[in-house]
Amino acid sequence: MARLISLIEDQSPVLGQVARELAPHTGQAHVVGITGAPGVGKSTTTSALVTALRASGRRVGVLAVDPSSPFTGGALLGDRVRMQEHATDPGVFIRSMATRGHLGGLAAAAPQAVRVLDAARCDVVLIETVGVGQSEVEVAGLADTTLVLLAPGMGDAIQAAKAGILEIGNVYCVNKADRDGADVTARELRTMLAIGRKVEGEDAPQWRPPILQTVASRGEGIAELLEQIDRHREFLVEHDELEARRRLRARAEIEALVVADVRTRLAHGADAAALDRLAGDVVSGATDPYTAAATLTP
Amino acid sequence: MARLISLIEDQSPVLGQVARELAPHTGQAHVVGITGAPGVGKSTTTSALVTALRASGRRVGVLAVDPSSPFTGGALLGDRVRMQEHATDPGVFIRSMATRGHLGGLAAAAPQAVRVLDAARCDVVLIETVGVGQSEVEVAGLADTTLVLLAPGMGDAIQAAKAGILEIGNVYCVNKADRDGADVTARELRTMLAIGRKVEGEDAPQWRPPILQTVASRGEGIAELLEQIDRHREFLVEHDELEARRRLRARAEIEALVVADVRTRLAHGADAAALDRLAGDVVSGATDPYTAAATLTP
Repeated sequence: MARLISLIEDQSPVLGQVARELAPHTGQAHVVGITGAPGVGKSTTTSALVTALRASGRRVGVLAVDPSSPFTGGALLGDRVRMQEHATDPGVFIRSMATRGHLGGLAAAAPQAVRVLDAARCDVVLIETVGVGQSEVEVAGLADTTLVLLAPGMGDAIQAAKAGILEIGNVYCVNKADRDGADVTARELRTMLAIGRKVEGEDAPQWRPPILQTVASRGEGIAELLEQIDRHREFLVEHDELEARRRLRARAEIEALVVADVRTRLAHGADAAALDRLAGDVVSGATDPYTAAATLTP
Repeated sequence: MARLISLIEDQSPVLGQVARELAPHTGQAHVVGITGAPGVGKSTTTSALVTALRASGRRVGVLAVDPSSPFTGGALLGDRVRMQEHATDPGVFIRSMATRGHLGGLAAAAPQAVRVLDAARCDVVLIETVGVGQSEVEVAGLADTTLVLLAPGMGDAIQAAKAGILEIGNVYCVNKADRDGADVTARELRTMLAIGRKVEGEDAPQWRPPILQTVASRGEGIAELLEQIDRHREFLVEHDELEARRRLRARAEIEALVVADVRTRLAHGADAAALDRLAGDVVSGATDPYTAAATLTP
């Protein structure tokens, strides 16, 4: 699996063949996105969920696409130690992906990596993302179930709203709930979710995102959190939404690959020299970006 | 200007012609990116810088591409009031851009909007971005000078490092410096910047990013901040780096337009129906994303 995911990151030319062979084996895993601002405890929560999932006998894949994750080299003290306990468990596969590279690189690579973990018969794939900023939100949108984490503190629910992550959650969780203000944050969040909720027909069955409180570092509330995550998947299946979500995901995956190919051609391929020359012309005012782009667009 | 920027956001077909006519008039403005995590006071600092720039007689453009900005509809209380004072100043042009849309939309539109403000003879264009997450960092990288804001508090410099914004600053500023811990944050930041700094030849003149402290809400330290921002531009000009930076920016601009065109074709254009069908095939396992992408890649 590690080698396959490395092939994806490296955009290896044999990837196409690998993907063809994996295709019939995908579609079983429950893909769960975990997102929230830096400092809310994403890594700790991810680790606690891994423990709970293992206790229920499920195979778990973890894909960390958060630059602040202990897995992606931003490792800091306790985080790394905490994850260490899973490192030797054969039922857990942990993989980090660097996000510092090219814009769109993550969008192209992350879903492929999920498919590898899925084909490897992980029952659940947890994707940890930083969740602030467009590209990460997009990744969270690719999950079957998205968990949005917050932490207590003045205005944190408001900051979450500002960062645009209030729309994307299927399950919300105020972590570090032993700190002052957890109830306030949960209440603010409840209010903001109620405001944001569209008025829909009474008949349309609608998922109401639950708001939980956890202290992930001590495992408190994690069983309930996992229960709600599982419940959301059941809801999707019952209401035929899983297929629709996955179709959107596949669309985004294909699109990301097409775009990645175009970018590669501009960076290293047939169009690289022309792009350099045109960039110089734009700086000198001899041409404009639109005219330049038109000469490069296929 | 507002109409031109709206044309850009709407991807109007007349944009090409507009860009051609603007091209010879661009290249004068000092483009300053302002970035930092939600809550560090980006809007307040931007507003204070506008006041200082106006006091020195300069024309100012503000482009807010932060969903949490008071300009982009995330307006909250004091922020909006604070900016109100500039709204009637004919030497200040403020424009917000929504970032919620398509991935790459911001990357494509923001530099074009900067060119409009530049061609309109703004001496300085301030771009306010949320600065956490890939796309925003990329936008910050498009500025001549990037200002990274932090606020006091445990681990804030570490969080900044995790979020990947420590590499991109030309000027650093600990805002809300009247709060406890500002000195600690500044010291941590200094240490982390020193660790991150590459060992270079003694002869190579190198910009050492200064670390300032401000209380933007009271205007404290803003004059010094502006001085350092101006000093960075002088450094770039003296060392022939301005042209090189702008060439990179033009490259990214052109690339973003090419990619936007490809995405448009996939979303609404010639390839949209084929993409839908292929997405269904990927979900059913009949094909894989790579094979699907290959049939769409030009």
